[in-house]
Amino acid sequence: MTEDKKKLTLVLFSGELDKALAAFNIATTAAAMDKDVTIFFTFWGLNVIKKPGGRVPGTGMLALMNRMNRGGANRLNFSKFNMLGAGTGLMKRFMGRAGLPSLEQMLAMGKQLGVHYIACTTTMGVMGLTEQDFVPEVESFAGAATYLAAADEAGVNLFIS
Amino acid sequence: MTEDKKKLTLVLFSGELDKALAAFNIATTAAAMDKDVTIFFTFWGLNVIKKPGGRVPGTGMLALMNRMNRGGANRLNFSKFNMLGAGTGLMKRFMGRAGLPSLEQMLAMGKQLGVHYIACTTTMGVMGLTEQDFVPEVESFAGAATYLAAADEAGVNLFIS
Amino acid sequence: MTEDKKKLTLVLFSGELDKALAAFNIATTAAAMDKDVTIFFTFWGLNVIKKPGGRVPGTGMLALMNRMNRGGANRLNFSKFNMLGAGTGLMKRFMGRAGLPSLEQMLAMGKQLGVHYIACTTTMGVMGLTEQDFVPEVESFAGAATYLAAADEAGVNLFIS
Repeated sequence: MTEDKKKLTLVLFSGELDKALAAFNIATTAAAMDKDVTIFFTFWGLNVIKKPGGRVPGTGMLALMNRMNRGGANRLNFSKFNMLGAGTGLMKRFMGRAGLPSLEQMLAMGKQLGVHYIACTTTMGVMGLTEQDFVPEVESFAGAATYLAAADEAGVNLFIS
Repeated sequence: MTEDKKKLTLVLFSGELDKALAAFNIATTAAAMDKDVTIFFTFWGLNVIKKPGGRVPGTGMLALMNRMNRGGANRLNFSKFNMLGAGTGLMKRFMGRAGLPSLEQMLAMGKQLGVHYIACTTTMGVMGLTEQDFVPEVESFAGAATYLAAADEAGVNLFIS
Repeated sequence: MTEDKKKLTLVLFSGELDKALAAFNIATTAAAMDKDVTIFFTFWGLNVIKKPGGRVPGTGMLALMNRMNRGGANRLNFSKFNMLGAGTGLMKRFMGRAGLPSLEQMLAMGKQLGVHYIACTTTMGVMGLTEQDFVPEVESFAGAATYLAAADEAGVNLFIS
């Protein structure tokens, strides 16, 4: 990281589309303003960076939970007005009409702008996920101490739950 | 903004009453402590500053979503224990008994104390809302870059989702 | 508080297990890194620090809400995939297997590491709760102004809703 860049960190705890969109809107805007941006994906937020159509680890109940929670940026639902997918689909359509990029496009844009994507290894351990379960845009795999070191150097730190 | 005032920013992403109350409690307390406070209303948070009884823009599904999502500080529900409005009503009653102002009163109090209310233009575009759909307390209409410029100067920045 | 320690504050607004775990993971990791950490428990977050099996204050509807909302670190549910407790129970089991402490253990660990636990008196007033309703680990009872004074001195401030 360049020392003279202003830094911003986001913890993305949520795996819901609307909250992920808000996180990426802030992250890509900040990166375009030449800030050094880090997103730490933890808990349900790991779904945002899971490979689409990836494996469903675990057996029995854990497999069931992972299946319901399958993730991939294109599979997330809204936290409200999802209406079995109709509300989410509609909102995606209106975002397209308003000229806004999709979450998958934002993920790629962020990467090009140098946003650091970190997947939380503690959550990965609990959920039985490995590095192979994530999209290649993920830069590193680490725990809360790494996040805190980044947050310490940043002027803006937000937690999106 | 006076340069020597300490600054605080809040992103209010949620349109739920309990979260809005927490945001305004922090904002008005900080403003009373002579801080320069900005609230950036985005996504469902726009409901907090919509005119009561305002128009329902859009047709078909979008009108339906906007209707369910009609907003106005007096129409918000709790994120939990809403119980078809009974829990929310009860909590409002207990707040009154405890001598606490309502959300509408807090919105006015904040304005008097100089809190800056910014409505997110990106969300407005997606939802088909215009400046006329909001209460007059709103000071400006802007996007994430404006929020980030304020956050950069602030010592405390919170995201309320 | 030692002046030369780096400070971190968390507002824990949520009473859900997954969000409380995220808060305590950050808090205990930061405290172990020798930071001065404060958690301000407000709204549903008060449930995390309620005595287990404590009294249910109020009558009628308020008693009902307090009963549903009874709290104690061992009684919280997940925000997602709770599945009438099955999902929450499963996750607790996997956390144990992954060698992670329970929320109750984290609460005690944090206390040993010097984390300051503050219960929000404004919420206590609305909910009819008194100091006797909380676990002894709580250090003080105060409002938003006390939280803001701590946040002002901290480099990292997060709101977990």
